[in-house]
Amino acid sequence: MDQHIKPVALEKAYRLLNHGPTVLVSASHDGVDNVMSAAWSCALDFSPPKVTLVLDKATATRPLVERSGYFALQVPNLSQLQLTYDVGHTSANDTPDKLGKAGVQLFRVEGHDVPLVAGSSAWLICKVLPEPRNEQVYDLFIGEVVAAYADDRVFSDGHWHFETADPSLRSLHYIAGGTFYAIGDAVVAKT
Amino acid sequence: MDQHIKPVALEKAYRLLNHGPTVLVSASHDGVDNVMSAAWSCALDFSPPKVTLVLDKATATRPLVERSGYFALQVPNLSQLQLTYDVGHTSANDTPDKLGKAGVQLFRVEGHDVPLVAGSSAWLICKVLPEPRNEQVYDLFIGEVVAAYADDRVFSDGHWHFETADPSLRSLHYIAGGTFYAIGDAVVAKT
Repeated sequence: MDQHIKPVALEKAYRLLNHGPTVLVSASHDGVDNVMSAAWSCALDFSPPKVTLVLDKATATRPLVERSGYFALQVPNLSQLQLTYDVGHTSANDTPDKLGKAGVQLFRVEGHDVPLVAGSSAWLICKVLPEPRNEQVYDLFIGEVVAAYADDRVFSDGHWHFETADPSLRSLHYIAGGTFYAIGDAVVAKT
Repeated sequence: MDQHIKPVALEKAYRLLNHGPTVLVSASHDGVDNVMSAAWSCALDFSPPKVTLVLDKATATRPLVERSGYFALQVPNLSQLQLTYDVGHTSANDTPDKLGKAGVQLFRVEGHDVPLVAGSSAWLICKVLPEPRNEQVYDLFIGEVVAAYADDRVFSDGHWHFETADPSLRSLHYIAGGTFYAIGDAVVAKT
């Protein structure tokens, strides 16, 4: 595992998603790995940390999540701009070598079978909390975060450091048609 | 209504939230208006557009949403940094003049009773789709967007223009402890 990947305390895991980044969703079942991007994922609770994730029924990733009961969210960065777009706009249902074509390299951490995307800024391994009505009616999945990691060059001591880290580590925020915004400058309110 | 506030086509409304901004949540019931900030709100569907919103049981806004069946989300901007922090860190339960102290000015649009926060960059008026289990177990509300508006100096023709608009109109993305990030530069993937 890359020397910069460090565990994040579970009670601080919500901060990895709090600023609304577009995420990469990964999952695995029966030897098949897949990754897709998703703009519609959000923190849901602090402790134990939970997240929401919208997974369309047409995606190839959804059945892997349903069958394994796990998914991972990763916070991609500017160096993964094209990868993030590509895994969101091709499906393994049509392009069997989707991950290879997009340049996705996977790794795993001990104790978890869900594949993680190398080069991301943060990773949250999530266990599905089954809510059949949400999943069927709204394509909405709820997961409990069971492990979290971040690249300590951009997230450490429970805080993002986008303003001092290399710009290539900034998070991506998708709009439409290939256009994303990178996260910008820190601004601080009087507390 | 401010001359810059223009309707947004409902099928493009998801784009107002797609980049994960912190939002202001407003609601009204029986003559009582309130506004709070929330980092945990997310698009849920394109058409009809739907959103998710986490509303803690301790908030004064939640009963207004439950009783009226409506809420509005607004996308605040850098000029509202302190206001956004303040309405997220005081409760009308403790500070009856919370809105006055935070400098919140409300307005309404014809046909809707939900109050809107002046000076924001975008507004989504939402009708609650009741899901009692989500609301009770997860504090998770689902709303259908029934009207949407944006300031045409920063969102027009279905697209944000953060990169060319005045920097004071950039969206805010909250982390913790008074620290937000403003949205940054546009970056475009090959489509």
